[in-house]
Amino acid sequence: MQQTKLANWEQVPFTKVNIADTFWRPRMEVLQNVTLKACFEKCETTGRIANFAKAAGLMEGKFEGIYFDDSDVYKVIEGAAYSLMTTPDPALEEKIDRIVDWIAAAQEEDGYLCTYFTLEAPDKKWTDMEKHEMYCGGHLMEAAVAYYEATGKRKLLDVACKLADHYDSIFGPGKRHWVEGHEEIELALLKLYRITGEERYLHLSEWLLEERGHGHGVGMIWEKEDWGPAYCQDDVPVKEIKTVKGHAVRAMYLYTAMADVARAKNSDSYLPALLSVWENVVHKNMYITGGIGPTHQNEGFTEDYDLPNESAYCETCAAIGMVLWNQRMNLLFGDAKYADVIERAMYNGVLSGLSHSGDKFFYVNPLASNGGHHRKSWYNVSCCPTNLARFIPSIGNYIYAKSNDGLAVNLYVNGTSEVVVRENNVVQIEQKTEYPWNGKVGLVITPDVTDEFSVKLRIPSWCKSYQVLVNGAKTDILSYEKGYLNLRRVWEKGDIIELLLDMPVKVVRAHPLVQANIGHIAIQRGPIVYCLEEVDNHHLQYGNIELSSDTQFQVKYQKDLLDGAITLTTTSAGDESYTFIPYYIWDNRDPGFMQVWLRERETDALYR
Amino acid sequence: MQQTKLANWEQVPFTKVNIADTFWRPRMEVLQNVTLKACFEKCETTGRIANFAKAAGLMEGKFEGIYFDDSDVYKVIEGAAYSLMTTPDPALEEKIDRIVDWIAAAQEEDGYLCTYFTLEAPDKKWTDMEKHEMYCGGHLMEAAVAYYEATGKRKLLDVACKLADHYDSIFGPGKRHWVEGHEEIELALLKLYRITGEERYLHLSEWLLEERGHGHGVGMIWEKEDWGPAYCQDDVPVKEIKTVKGHAVRAMYLYTAMADVARAKNSDSYLPALLSVWENVVHKNMYITGGIGPTHQNEGFTEDYDLPNESAYCETCAAIGMVLWNQRMNLLFGDAKYADVIERAMYNGVLSGLSHSGDKFFYVNPLASNGGHHRKSWYNVSCCPTNLARFIPSIGNYIYAKSNDGLAVNLYVNGTSEVVVRENNVVQIEQKTEYPWNGKVGLVITPDVTDEFSVKLRIPSWCKSYQVLVNGAKTDILSYEKGYLNLRRVWEKGDIIELLLDMPVKVVRAHPLVQANIGHIAIQRGPIVYCLEEVDNHHLQYGNIELSSDTQFQVKYQKDLLDGAITLTTTSAGDESYTFIPYYIWDNRDPGFMQVWLRERETDALYR
Repeated sequence: MQQTKLANWEQVPFTKVNIADTFWRPRMEVLQNVTLKACFEKCETTGRIANFAKAAGLMEGKFEGIYFDDSDVYKVIEGAAYSLMTTPDPALEEKIDRIVDWIAAAQEEDGYLCTYFTLEAPDKKWTDMEKHEMYCGGHLMEAAVAYYEATGKRKLLDVACKLADHYDSIFGPGKRHWVEGHEEIELALLKLYRITGEERYLHLSEWLLEERGHGHGVGMIWEKEDWGPAYCQDDVPVKEIKTVKGHAVRAMYLYTAMADVARAKNSDSYLPALLSVWENVVHKNMYITGGIGPTHQNEGFTEDYDLPNESAYCETCAAIGMVLWNQRMNLLFGDAKYADVIERAMYNGVLSGLSHSGDKFFYVNPLASNGGHHRKSWYNVSCCPTNLARFIPSIGNYIYAKSNDGLAVNLYVNGTSEVVVRENNVVQIEQKTEYPWNGKVGLVITPDVTDEFSVKLRIPSWCKSYQVLVNGAKTDILSYEKGYLNLRRVWEKGDIIELLLDMPVKVVRAHPLVQANIGHIAIQRGPIVYCLEEVDNHHLQYGNIELSSDTQFQVKYQKDLLDGAITLTTTSAGDESYTFIPYYIWDNRDPGFMQVWLRERETDALYR
Repeated sequence: MQQTKLANWEQVPFTKVNIADTFWRPRMEVLQNVTLKACFEKCETTGRIANFAKAAGLMEGKFEGIYFDDSDVYKVIEGAAYSLMTTPDPALEEKIDRIVDWIAAAQEEDGYLCTYFTLEAPDKKWTDMEKHEMYCGGHLMEAAVAYYEATGKRKLLDVACKLADHYDSIFGPGKRHWVEGHEEIELALLKLYRITGEERYLHLSEWLLEERGHGHGVGMIWEKEDWGPAYCQDDVPVKEIKTVKGHAVRAMYLYTAMADVARAKNSDSYLPALLSVWENVVHKNMYITGGIGPTHQNEGFTEDYDLPNESAYCETCAAIGMVLWNQRMNLLFGDAKYADVIERAMYNGVLSGLSHSGDKFFYVNPLASNGGHHRKSWYNVSCCPTNLARFIPSIGNYIYAKSNDGLAVNLYVNGTSEVVVRENNVVQIEQKTEYPWNGKVGLVITPDVTDEFSVKLRIPSWCKSYQVLVNGAKTDILSYEKGYLNLRRVWEKGDIIELLLDMPVKVVRAHPLVQANIGHIAIQRGPIVYCLEEVDNHHLQYGNIELSSDTQFQVKYQKDLLDGAITLTTTSAGDESYTFIPYYIWDNRDPGFMQVWLRERETDALYR
């Protein structure tokens, strides 16, 4: 890998992106109006917030819950901060300020902060690397950065810096070794570095990455021989990583941090590992939904191509982790294949985690269920609800990117944005589309100054064919590279791009080495993976459903199905008609079976 | 099979159909302005027309050409007649009248007509069943019916009837046996029966069909043991036909006649044979272009799934025969799967036979060529040019059908028509579409009288998904049967149907038993089969071209490519770009290689 290969695109932050569609916008509103409130309430009723008051001595009582519960409070604050950035809410801000006071009060003199140890085991600090002390600290840092950006208030940020300085005083070259069992601190320190400019945070993050794989790991996890160091990516030095192993969420957070450090240091030393493990994850270990981690045993990976459907784990947090990591990869390399994964995960394996009502969540996202799997309003380990709480308000991050010679459109979402290209040329972008229900996309490009630059349009990997027009005419000034159609030309105010992505129903087959799907097919349309749910198909019998690959589908927009969605109804001669719904929608109506992969019925057609 | 299973739809004749598109209309104009003239001229310069004058004693000289050359003259007259029905042309009519005078004069006293025998071997009449005497007679009858319908002039029709009566006086129950080596007379007699109402013609046709398979065949063909009776479908009685054998064009004309007789007699005795042989042809012996007959040896069939590409014979006449037969099947059974074959053949294997200029023709239509295969302006055996001459002007026959409870739309072609439904309710149809380049179809239905009836829309087999609206709204009053979306409702003047057929580029694979295409893929968009031609792809090497199934294509309408056509350009990372053109277009520009099926390059994608 040559550094020169790095594209180093910049994210266009969601604060610069207005989402005005009927798909994500309603989810964001539900998140703000229902999910955040529900998560705060759960953090209160379960004692998660009270733990801070207790640790601060402001309240009587023992620690309640699990040792890493602080992290949920931080994650909800982070999500609330994102929501405040686009939708001010004084009451919400007021509520957060009170919690911040308790968090600050709970921080110990030397900067240490983890209410479980403060309250339960002060003498056990830093004795078990699996106890998530830095994991919680990392989420505090992410929340602090977000809340500072949202409000300009430094209080939580100061707590975060004091905590980072505390870590830095204990751990590092010539100081104590540390392998944090659950990665998170590494990427959080990068955020803290970016906002404070404090080089020590970058170095500490890199040092923590480099600590892995040298036998420094100590704690309950490291002793479980059926898991071992690989469970938390401590089996090899990170530069030597080739394939994905262990706990899925931890792996995603690790790769995310590695990409962040590579970017921050403009160093290529992590790139071979990142490229190799990406191939391994995406070509051998990813579900069609973008979910990862086939088993609940280690909440993670087993062997390549082991992708069972009914027992799939596919933790919501892991799918979110796929988005976080692939976003870094897309910016590093300027390659659309990473945005393909972002899209696959966002529209399927992530979104399925959140109920339409906004107050119920999947921790586990199987691809088949006999009817017994349902969303819950909370979990003892509630990382998934609180991860959704911070992810959904920030989806605007994934739509546009600033490239070195212009801008790139990664996702097709109705709305507006602005990107600064070349020498401070502010380009207004208006995107008109009914995506993901329709492949037609209109883009109005309005630069401050008429100038030559590139507008890169991602051609999604699901799309076999497309047409593109600039100002109504077939354009020839385009090249295609790394999954993008590159429209490089002199852009004037109001230039119009029309992109027509053919979006038929597609029959998908899995790689033949995927045992679970041999002889099976799945149905996808655009980025949306479809499934059969019992409520629409009472006449079918779970596990016994067959579908021919030459089935034809009537595409119907059902405006009353949740926020409105396209259903697919089979119309092949012979068949009883089947009705398919988007996977992310399932378990929002009458409970029942659900299946994504269906046994393929043979066809005698000569051409298929 | 129960008779009750018969739909007995009626063809809406091309005289009631106005084609106003940019695809077929220019072909029809070229046919009228160039092809017909060219064919008449060839019939003159090769002595084909003079043979009639000679046989009539109006001109000196010996018979020129081959013993079945009369048929070409008849077929051009038939084509000219069709053209006159939609576009009057006094000069053309005048020219035909002169030829008709000679034909009439060439008919012998007893009604016999075949200039070869009259001039060369009067003593050899009816001694060799392979000498095409009735084959020529059949084409005379088709021409006579067409010219009578076009002009009301009886002269040629009288000649045809006199000839049919002559046959009837010699052959039939208690008279001489006869197995005409090349079928054609059987379907021609049905046309003569329909226009004259003369039952004897129907009975003679049925008797000729029943003569086959009983060892009555006599002549050179029957002695060639490597061919034998199967070559001309004389191996088994027609009721016992199960699989296709022998000469492709002969087989198609036979099945066409069998379907005509079944329809005329409303008898189901031929239906099992027709259904069985159809499955055999379409599911085991048809090229992706709708062409049939893999080998030049017998101009016909070998074994199931034997479909070589470079050596494919695929005679243009045979593809036309597929259309003729499948049209009868569609009307008999009201099943869209027959119209699927009509469409496949018309847009690919038939149309490829005619050059864009209109004066060059393929006899053989291979699916791959190293550069040595080109259209010629004429052939010693010129059945294909003259078959195109009568086929193209009559394509309007295949667009609409009158069903028992309404109408069916079989092909999507821009233009207008009228269909009489129920009790003389004349329904005006206006079809707006850019098909085959675009899957959007608008239909305005204007019945004389507001009434309830069915409008059946064929959902083409190439189409995986579609949307349909009636007067702008999602409609639920529809069922799906036999490949048709059945819109049954009360129709009022000006009701609007919008049908959106998703038309992406499609990667096609052949049945695994097709040896020639193992590990190969072909590209299709809508009904159009695509190919790579050297003129657009100089950087590629014939026979060495690989394509990955996850290739993406840019769809470009090229208005300057012949009459305008959509080309497909690959845009997959890595690939040098390939440009695909519709198969029917090939060999109209610089000569070079052509390939439809390409070796598939493996992809490591987990989902395909």
